[in-house]
Amino acid sequence: MRVLGIDPGLRNMGWGVIDADGSRLSHVANGICHSVGTELASRLLSLHEQLTDVFAQYQPDHAAIENTFVNKDAVGTLKLGQARGVALLVPAQFGLVIGEYAPNKVKKTVVGVGHAEKHQVEHMVKLQLPGAKINGPDAADALAIAICHAHYARAGAGIEGALKRARA
Amino acid sequence: MRVLGIDPGLRNMGWGVIDADGSRLSHVANGICHSVGTELASRLLSLHEQLTDVFAQYQPDHAAIENTFVNKDAVGTLKLGQARGVALLVPAQFGLVIGEYAPNKVKKTVVGVGHAEKHQVEHMVKLQLPGAKINGPDAADALAIAICHAHYARAGAGIEGALKRARA
Repeated sequence: MRVLGIDPGLRNMGWGVIDADGSRLSHVANGICHSVGTELASRLLSLHEQLTDVFAQYQPDHAAIENTFVNKDAVGTLKLGQARGVALLVPAQFGLVIGEYAPNKVKKTVVGVGHAEKHQVEHMVKLQLPGAKINGPDAADALAIAICHAHYARAGAGIEGALKRARA
Repeated sequence: MRVLGIDPGLRNMGWGVIDADGSRLSHVANGICHSVGTELASRLLSLHEQLTDVFAQYQPDHAAIENTFVNKDAVGTLKLGQARGVALLVPAQFGLVIGEYAPNKVKKTVVGVGHAEKHQVEHMVKLQLPGAKINGPDAADALAIAICHAHYARAGAGIEGALKRARA
């Protein structure tokens, strides 16, 4: 199973791709889509194009995204919402179902505690994906989201499998 | 000049197309893109597809959108932001520059007062676009945004023309 995780943001949108074979994870790629300029629409267009290229290049089977914090100011929330709209649209255009995870759930899965610091997340991501060269904290977050999704998708498949076996 | 106005929303996204020839306006079409279902990403995908069809069908030269109110609750602001991201992306994908107008500016231009009621907006839109059959208040708002943009684009062209003449 190949998972592409997204850490949405208008200026920097982190992405990270992993392969998961049972509980074995391996790093594929990670990076940041940057949007520059002052025109909001052209920034969203640029993010859409860059993210579309990433999906086309790495052909994930699953996508996962962080449930956005909404305790920012209203203007910040609106900006983030606009970027997040693009981040959700792209995998939907590739026909993928998207897992959404709260930041605390991602941290709890990857680090073991829900209130981990950013550097702890990056540290644990590196431990779980040996050899990965990580392009900054937003890309580390995106990889953490992908790891979290791989974990829950596997657990879900396990439960589903167990239920199927129980029904058989 | 053909203008397509958008009133962004996740459930109902109003749109309206007008032709402006100097100060003479005429109605072309209006409608609502509806998104249904529970999956946010598939709702955004549906809005993107519907709005893309509208732009492809009516081939506007200009697009205009309402500056979103951000005095809602955070969850509502985030939802609106995600829909607005799609509403800004589509005209950018068609290579159009997008005019953004505050709701009060739209009302002031169309009705004459900044705090007009929704039914007053619809009434004035009907007066300015005789014969238009309007598909509900969101479509009326979208037509009002298009009228507002036609007004300011014309005024802008006037100033630009005057400056050019002054420089010549």
